[in-house]
Amino acid sequence: MEKDLQRLKSLDRGIQILSHVAAVLDWDQETYMPDNAVEERSDQVAAVRALVHERRTSPEIGELLARLGAGEDNPKGDPGLPEADRALLRVMHREYTREVKLPTDLVVRLAKVTSVAQARWVEARKRSDFKAFAPVLREILELTIESAELLGYEDNRYDALLDSYEPWMRTAKVREVFAHLQKELVSLVDAIRGAAQVDDEFLKADFPIPKQDEFGRFVLEQMGWDSGSGRLDRSAHPFTSTLGAQDVRLTTRYDSHNFKSGLFSTIHEAGHGLYELGFAESFRGSTLANAVSLGVHESQSRTWENIVGRSMPFWTHFYPLLRKAFPAQLSGHELPSFYRAINRVEPSHIRVDADEVTYSLHVILRFNLELKLVNRELAVEDLPEAWREESRRLLGIVPETDALGVLQDIHWSIGSIGYFPTYALGNLYGAQFMNTMRMEIPDLDERLGKGELPTVLGWLRQHIHRHGSSLTAEELVRSVSGEELKADYFLRYLRDKYREIYKLTGI
Amino acid sequence: MEKDLQRLKSLDRGIQILSHVAAVLDWDQETYMPDNAVEERSDQVAAVRALVHERRTSPEIGELLARLGAGEDNPKGDPGLPEADRALLRVMHREYTREVKLPTDLVVRLAKVTSVAQARWVEARKRSDFKAFAPVLREILELTIESAELLGYEDNRYDALLDSYEPWMRTAKVREVFAHLQKELVSLVDAIRGAAQVDDEFLKADFPIPKQDEFGRFVLEQMGWDSGSGRLDRSAHPFTSTLGAQDVRLTTRYDSHNFKSGLFSTIHEAGHGLYELGFAESFRGSTLANAVSLGVHESQSRTWENIVGRSMPFWTHFYPLLRKAFPAQLSGHELPSFYRAINRVEPSHIRVDADEVTYSLHVILRFNLELKLVNRELAVEDLPEAWREESRRLLGIVPETDALGVLQDIHWSIGSIGYFPTYALGNLYGAQFMNTMRMEIPDLDERLGKGELPTVLGWLRQHIHRHGSSLTAEELVRSVSGEELKADYFLRYLRDKYREIYKLTGI
Repeated sequence: MEKDLQRLKSLDRGIQILSHVAAVLDWDQETYMPDNAVEERSDQVAAVRALVHERRTSPEIGELLARLGAGEDNPKGDPGLPEADRALLRVMHREYTREVKLPTDLVVRLAKVTSVAQARWVEARKRSDFKAFAPVLREILELTIESAELLGYEDNRYDALLDSYEPWMRTAKVREVFAHLQKELVSLVDAIRGAAQVDDEFLKADFPIPKQDEFGRFVLEQMGWDSGSGRLDRSAHPFTSTLGAQDVRLTTRYDSHNFKSGLFSTIHEAGHGLYELGFAESFRGSTLANAVSLGVHESQSRTWENIVGRSMPFWTHFYPLLRKAFPAQLSGHELPSFYRAINRVEPSHIRVDADEVTYSLHVILRFNLELKLVNRELAVEDLPEAWREESRRLLGIVPETDALGVLQDIHWSIGSIGYFPTYALGNLYGAQFMNTMRMEIPDLDERLGKGELPTVLGWLRQHIHRHGSSLTAEELVRSVSGEELKADYFLRYLRDKYREIYKLTGI
Repeated sequence: MEKDLQRLKSLDRGIQILSHVAAVLDWDQETYMPDNAVEERSDQVAAVRALVHERRTSPEIGELLARLGAGEDNPKGDPGLPEADRALLRVMHREYTREVKLPTDLVVRLAKVTSVAQARWVEARKRSDFKAFAPVLREILELTIESAELLGYEDNRYDALLDSYEPWMRTAKVREVFAHLQKELVSLVDAIRGAAQVDDEFLKADFPIPKQDEFGRFVLEQMGWDSGSGRLDRSAHPFTSTLGAQDVRLTTRYDSHNFKSGLFSTIHEAGHGLYELGFAESFRGSTLANAVSLGVHESQSRTWENIVGRSMPFWTHFYPLLRKAFPAQLSGHELPSFYRAINRVEPSHIRVDADEVTYSLHVILRFNLELKLVNRELAVEDLPEAWREESRRLLGIVPETDALGVLQDIHWSIGSIGYFPTYALGNLYGAQFMNTMRMEIPDLDERLGKGELPTVLGWLRQHIHRHGSSLTAEELVRSVSGEELKADYFLRYLRDKYREIYKLTGI
């Protein structure tokens, strides 16, 4: 058995190495690659991804998993094995059984149609022309449904898709928490709409980009970012990419007339990056040194960006330093008005620009539509109208163009259907984790007020990061909070914060 | 036969794609990779290189080559095939037969010892302590000799090594041209030593790096560099790397008090890069879209750096522009004195800083020592003394420390024995090509004086670049000049140039 286990680990290690190679290719493409290299790079990425898929589905892995006792009913394998090895078996069994179900032919067809679709989407969005995108979206949807059928599910076809991004999560559970979340958020947004709006005009003054960059890097360092194990670059859309256990790269983007955009993107991506750098050393080189789910990943970025990065204690420490960096721009604006400005709530059309109150409503909108599409309760051609209706219902506003509505996100064009819910789940995980952190560190706000960010990082490393994918998201939430995932912590956090900012009563 | 050929081409294409993937990993490592990622990156590179080796030596390639008629006596295969396909067979047959001769075990042992040796060399050079490097160098030499014996040779063991870098070149030929070159260079250096030295002190003033970078990029653009298909970055040691047919990356380095270093490194690397971007489009994705040899590669960099980039016509056009960029630093220094300064000749210890007259003597020194080492006529422990003797004999100076002598180059520590000759061969190829170019473009200097660099690029593309590795270096030289490689053209070029600069008589 020991020999089988060692062999399995060695195969896993080879797979992780090649996955990181693919990440190097992707990162370079988004940052420094010259324009004319696009086509060849896609061949390079495809070649490496094909190798990864080939290795992940090699019959030898199937045989080793079987010999180690891992099967549908007992994914963790032989109960006599150490817990970390059983966790590895569970993850590898899950990946293996999923990937072997998808024939190479289907994977290639999906890759081909999405590579066309991406360009088609860019064009369609530019001209706000949904009809130009609909045919290829229909193809993607059909192939996605085909995949879901092959992957299998018990209850809802959407489960098979959701599971790609949020392993072991079920649609019924998402529905349940989102229903509660939606109801409460709609009423919170209503309350805010009735209150006096806060002013954030002064954050649209000219904040020179080199200064923004300098300040962002300073905050990054204060968060505990080790520049020996990562980088911060710029790209069209901020992202985090893991090129190795000690090589995590962040990107951000700056707009000289939108101060919030650059800094909070940096903090957000650093939240992702610190998670990726925090897996237990003993997991290094194994698939356990990966995030358990995209929802938990998003909990880390949103905790840093919003719960910490847009809090009063955080800015009690940082605002005097920010004012030194931008004395003219911030003159006359004291801490309370700055704090309100970075937390302004207002229903708007574009998800990525949404505030932390309305953001989850954007996600629920997409979840509702995806669920119907995947279960054939909504036709692709009826999507724009359905989008407008959902937007009116959830956000109280209707996009005038499809570019501001159904065409705004890249996800569907790259075949990522079932991905959106993880963004809102991240808010819920984050607030639930933070609730425990606050109980365990009663003077947290006081420490944040002194700029002691390592307190937060240390706690997250110990309770969240180090586990990698050795615990399921559900096990992780239970181990941290003693409960299953629920929306209440996030809702309470929002109410407490915005009651004060907007002087709300009766919520 | 057509089917076999298509299959072979498809395997070749897969190998080229993975080679480019390895190049992405290497480039990133030398430019942007964070420090702590070194170890994992070496695992990533090793994994991809192992795949390339595995594929290059796959029995299927051997069978296809045999079925297509390619063998030791007939490397180009079936005479009925198109010439380009026969050229492909020759290159693939050569690579295949070489690589299958080296057992994986030996390749791994060599990789391991060189990875240790590199670090050992860095340390040894820092402390100028050859004894600390000698044991690992002895190991490398033994494994290199073992490789040479496995690769096989007719005449001299060194042939097997030389052939890795300069395919089809023989030691006897190098000996012959180097003997002539050495004799003539030593007497030219002697003549220059007897003349009044030129002043280049003013090029050591403060040339701010951003301005140097701007001017370097301007020259690059004038040379015909397309920034859509490449980049210029910085690294500790300048290099050129090909990440794809339309993705060639250059690096340079700047020293604010050494103007020559940055600009001429940029022009040198651009020479390499333009070659890599110039292979015939029909070769794209195949191994024919590679340089024929390192010597020919070096001919391109040295032609641009020295024959063009340090010529009077080139600076007739560019010097007024350079003075605009650095008015204070260059005030009072007219074109003739600038031209002399960038062409100052002086025997010195460090090869990479050598002028174009003494440079080849540095190479000959290394070639002489390598030849003895590989043929067991010189023991590793006697190297430092042998180095000093050769340096006295060839350059007329003796390094006071081993850091300035035998420890100065990285090559031996990475197992590159047999590589050095290609640097001097590059000078010879370059001058021989340029002689033909001048005959075909009689008004070349006049055109250069107007900044018409595309004239040079166009000629090189047509006569050198597009051939890739479809011609051997010998075939290429014959096709361009009608003769075999000889030192005379280079020597005549140097004599004409330096007779004028140093006002020499009787040479």
